Amino acid sequence: MQDPIDPVKLDRLAEVAVRVGLNLQPGQDLVLTAPVGALPLVRRIAEHAYKAGAGLVTPILSDDQVTLARYAQARDDSFDAAAGWLFDGMAAAYDKGAARLAIAGGDPMLLSEQDPDKVARANRAMAMAYSGARDRITRFATNWTIVAWPDAAWARLVSPELSAHDAQRRLAEAIFAASRVEDDGAVENWLSHNAELGRRSAWLDGQNFSALQYSGPGTDLTIGLADGHKWVAGATQTTSGILCNPNIPTEEVFTTPHRLRVSGTVCATKPLSHQGTLIENIAVRFEEGRIVEAKATKGEAVLQKVLDTDEGARRLGEVALVPHGSPISQSGMLFYNTLFDENAASHIALGQCYSTCFHGGDKMDTDEVARRGGNASAIHIDWMIGSGQIDIDGISQSGERVPVMRKGEWA
Amino acid sequence: MQDPIDPVKLDRLAEVAVRVGLNLQPGQDLVLTAPVGALPLVRRIAEHAYKAGAGLVTPILSDDQVTLARYAQARDDSFDAAAGWLFDGMAAAYDKGAARLAIAGGDPMLLSEQDPDKVARANRAMAMAYSGARDRITRFATNWTIVAWPDAAWARLVSPELSAHDAQRRLAEAIFAASRVEDDGAVENWLSHNAELGRRSAWLDGQNFSALQYSGPGTDLTIGLADGHKWVAGATQTTSGILCNPNIPTEEVFTTPHRLRVSGTVCATKPLSHQGTLIENIAVRFEEGRIVEAKATKGEAVLQKVLDTDEGARRLGEVALVPHGSPISQSGMLFYNTLFDENAASHIALGQCYSTCFHGGDKMDTDEVARRGGNASAIHIDWMIGSGQIDIDGISQSGERVPVMRKGEWA
Ligand SMILES: [Zn+2]
Ligand SMILES: [Zn+2]
Ligand SMILES: [Zn+2]
Ligand SMILES: [Zn+2]
Repeated sequence: MQDPIDPVKLDRLAEVAVRVGLNLQPGQDLVLTAPVGALPLVRRIAEHAYKAGAGLVTPILSDDQVTLARYAQARDDSFDAAAGWLFDGMAAAYDKGAARLAIAGGDPMLLSEQDPDKVARANRAMAMAYSGARDRITRFATNWTIVAWPDAAWARLVSPELSAHDAQRRLAEAIFAASRVEDDGAVENWLSHNAELGRRSAWLDGQNFSALQYSGPGTDLTIGLADGHKWVAGATQTTSGILCNPNIPTEEVFTTPHRLRVSGTVCATKPLSHQGTLIENIAVRFEEGRIVEAKATKGEAVLQKVLDTDEGARRLGEVALVPHGSPISQSGMLFYNTLFDENAASHIALGQCYSTCFHGGDKMDTDEVARRGGNASAIHIDWMIGSGQIDIDGISQSGERVPVMRKGEWA
Repeated sequence: MQDPIDPVKLDRLAEVAVRVGLNLQPGQDLVLTAPVGALPLVRRIAEHAYKAGAGLVTPILSDDQVTLARYAQARDDSFDAAAGWLFDGMAAAYDKGAARLAIAGGDPMLLSEQDPDKVARANRAMAMAYSGARDRITRFATNWTIVAWPDAAWARLVSPELSAHDAQRRLAEAIFAASRVEDDGAVENWLSHNAELGRRSAWLDGQNFSALQYSGPGTDLTIGLADGHKWVAGATQTTSGILCNPNIPTEEVFTTPHRLRVSGTVCATKPLSHQGTLIENIAVRFEEGRIVEAKATKGEAVLQKVLDTDEGARRLGEVALVPHGSPISQSGMLFYNTLFDENAASHIALGQCYSTCFHGGDKMDTDEVARRGGNASAIHIDWMIGSGQIDIDGISQSGERVPVMRKGEWA
């Protein structure tokens, strides 16, 4: 029987992850997190990392069954525990110059049958313990990237109608296509894709819009943009000057909205898969940047819990534009995974903003980011509001309208 | 086909590791290191740890293929790198009360074909980076234990004449027998085994022998014991008062010999596996504590190199008593792994002594240890001198003989 995962494309994905995603520098150490099932990809990445001159590659592998053992057996106060020692160690590694690669692709429904309160507490404890390491990632204090592994359980969720073998094959091929590693010359193809994304972000930066206005079915939304916001796409430069691609794949052009200047209503155009729960048909209303009303036809309790995480969880930290014709959108697949689904459609994110989405953001402290309208939160959750029926106008600083997207495509 | 690893015994091993090895306390976190192949045991241990009230179980899994990718691809200076951030993080976890479980059982021959200089440099870098965490372990600042997983490559080395399936089954059964988990009630059996070991060490301590005298085929040896020596066996108490069993299995009762008061001849009763070389039929002669003559029918050059490591490498750092009827001895297997082989027969060790084998040793500096006869060296190599034909007498401080072992069994 044929391997459901094409070994040639898998090796290309590893090479793209190291050379484009990380742009790993000779002598850099690498901290690599992955679900244990992704071991074949971990091994390919380790090989390409050492070929690129890595110092030491340290894989940190997680196992879904160990996680489930916790939910099945642990006493109640376990759910407030987190591995702070490990995350603080990672932060120390980044400070000493280590790069960071995350392989996404565990079972998205892993915790769907567990007590939501325990899940929420465990996530909160994790988010707090992770804050130091996350801070270095969001500041691009080091080069980092995320790539995906076609996990068997994830594949079953995406294609329940197929056999296990065919489902994994379909997901693997979709990941390879979205990650632009189908053909030879993948590294070079990525460089031209980056250049195209760079042209879009440069145009938007030149416009320096005050706000974006969205209209479409159930959506009439104005998103003010932060003062001195910068549009970012594709490759990002670290504070030490390394150009990395933090997401493989990436199709979005995104910036920081103003946390106080968002108003109107918006409907999600795709379900949001959040830690095992599918939240469907989200509809929210903003006043002065804050979500004052939120509904969903399914998973609403989980959504409300997310919004109650902290004050910043009800405000926006990202606005992103993705053309409806992007390869991931055209695949028609729902991946139940933000890395892919957020590149299938224009989206917004609740929670923490990226200080890199400001001109001169690398030199701003959190007060300065807040003063310019940047949002702060323990969460960052993307959800899709784009489709082939959405029009977006830019509102210039002098109040004029400039078409940005029409029916989901660049105007 | 039958699973080569009996799932019931595997589960018992996990339970013994958590309840006897660690004696895990409610609310304690657990740091668990293992080769990735040991995942079935990792999962059982996580379950028993959570059942015992663990806070958070964090597995750190290593992969032999990633290690080999380093030797195949990494540039030269990679071999001076180590994951200090990870080991320092572990030390921080122990300081906050986390327990430590290591699963042994990678491929013992993994690096046998790699450049010995690179292997030595990588080991040295690792040993230095690990020193903070190791210091907490050797001081028993937290409860810790080691158990073994019947790794496929290890099984092939032990039983090259068998099929992969049968070899793994044989190693698994030998590990289960040695670890005393063959039958129901394994935890209770361990408590009585610990009590038995405790009675032996208490009796030996009460005798406070000046020396032990060994006689048997090719052996006529007197081993003086260090001043204020303490016999140690089975469970050990942490500085915070938790009684843990640092080795699963354990059969030995051991103490510190006097580095200047060993004389006579002794023959090894089993081959010594040293860094990939099998040294057979070792025979040595001691004068005033020092090996002045050493022979082996195979691997003698390696033995001579070991003895030339430093001044302390020719003197003894440990003397350990193991009855010939112990389960590991009765298996007749050579494990190529000290955790097992040193529990198969009475043994002595060349090199470094344990300061824990002195009364009040936790408060002694290295000068005081030396003054009392403790040996110092960069090595600690155990080799087996016990068999069913060895008699051992204790020599009291006033010169009387007391039978300790007859034909390899407690007298
Ligand atoms: Zn985004
Ligand atoms: Zn986002
Ligand atoms: Zn020993
Ligand atoms: Zn020893």
